[in-house]
Amino acid sequence: MNGKFIVFEGPDGSGKTTILNKVNEILISKGYKTNLLREPGGTFISEKIRDIIIDNENINMDAKTEALLFAASRAQLVSEKIKPLMEAGEIILCDRFVLSSLTYQGVGRGLGIDEIKAINDFATGGLKADLTVFFNIDYKDALIRKRANFTADRLENEEFDFHKKIFDAYLDMAKLYQDEICEIDASKSIDEVSKSALDLILNILED
Amino acid sequence: MNGKFIVFEGPDGSGKTTILNKVNEILISKGYKTNLLREPGGTFISEKIRDIIIDNENINMDAKTEALLFAASRAQLVSEKIKPLMEAGEIILCDRFVLSSLTYQGVGRGLGIDEIKAINDFATGGLKADLTVFFNIDYKDALIRKRANFTADRLENEEFDFHKKIFDAYLDMAKLYQDEICEIDASKSIDEVSKSALDLILNILED
Repeated sequence: MNGKFIVFEGPDGSGKTTILNKVNEILISKGYKTNLLREPGGTFISEKIRDIIIDNENINMDAKTEALLFAASRAQLVSEKIKPLMEAGEIILCDRFVLSSLTYQGVGRGLGIDEIKAINDFATGGLKADLTVFFNIDYKDALIRKRANFTADRLENEEFDFHKKIFDAYLDMAKLYQDEICEIDASKSIDEVSKSALDLILNILED
Repeated sequence: MNGKFIVFEGPDGSGKTTILNKVNEILISKGYKTNLLREPGGTFISEKIRDIIIDNENINMDAKTEALLFAASRAQLVSEKIKPLMEAGEIILCDRFVLSSLTYQGVGRGLGIDEIKAINDFATGGLKADLTVFFNIDYKDALIRKRANFTADRLENEEFDFHKKIFDAYLDMAKLYQDEICEIDASKSIDEVSKSALDLILNILED
C-alpha cells in the first residue's frame, strides 16, 4: 500500500468539489498522475447505490437504510478502486469518505458516531486516508453558496439546523482527530483555498 | 408490539416460498388477516436495493457490499413495514430475515457471524421473529429442486460447496438457537411440509 489516499471533506457548499477539480488540474500540470473518486459512487455498483440514495422519490428512506447504503457504496469503492490503486502506488483524490458518514449519519441523523464508525470499519476494513483536508466554512455561508449554484437533491433539501449540526460535528471531529485532519479556511477565494489545499497535498506527495 | 412476526428460513430450493404461499392461503381461509413480505425487498426502496443485489451485471460485487445492501434493504423493511404492522397487532409472514444473512454472508461469504450480526442488530434495532421456521433439506436435493424450477440469478449461480456451507450453517444455527428456530423436514411432500409449518404457526397465533 504505497499509494497516497487524499480525502476532501466538508459541508455541502464548502467548495470542496470545485477545489478538488482545480487542484487536480494543477497536480497533472506538475506531472503527477492522479485518480479522482467521489462518494457515494465511483464504481459501476456504487453509482447505482448513489442513484437510490439521492433520488427524491425515496424521501421516506429510513436513516439506517441511508447509512447502510453509504457504507455499501464505500465497501465497493474500497475493494474495487482504492485498495488496488493504493497497492499500485497511485495518488487518489476522493470527494468525501468515512468522515462524511460520521457527521451526516452519525450526528446529523442522530444514529451515533460509534455505531456509524463500526459499520464503516466493516465496510473499509479500517482503511484510512493519508490526508484528510477539511473545508472549514460556516454552514450558513456554505448553504447560500450551494443554493445559488446547484439544483437541490434529497440530501440538500434538509433543514437549516441539520446543516448546523453537520458543521458543528465537522468542527468537533477536526479537533478530536487533529493528527489526521488538516483544516483549511474555505471562506476565502477559490485561488486562495486551492493554494492551501495544494500545499497540504504536495507536502504529503513529496514526503 | 402485539403482532406476530413469523419468518421462513432455509437454503435455496428448500420450498419455503411455495409453502409460504400455501400456508398463507390456508390461514386466510381460516379467517386470519396476514401480511406477506419477502427479503431482500418488500418496500419500494428495498425492492430497488434488491434489483442491485440480484442483477447478474453486478457479478464483481464485493461480499461486504452485498452484506451491507441486504442490511439496508432490511432496515427499510423493518421501519416501514414490520414495526408498524407489529404495533397494529398484525400477522406477518416473511420469506427470509436476519438468519439468511448470518448463513449466506456470515458463513457462506466468510465475513463472520458476529460481524454480520452486529450490522443487522443496527439495521433491525434488535427486532426478533416470534417464530422462525427452518426448512431442513439436504443442499443437494434443494439445489436439484431449485435448478429444475427456476431461472438462475447471480446468487443461485454459486458453486456447490457454497450451498453446502450454507446448509451446514443453517444446521448449526438451528442447534445453537433451538429455542427460537423450529425445524421442519422439508424433503417431504408439499402437503406434508405445509401441515408441519401450519401447525407451528397456529400454535403461535392461538397462543
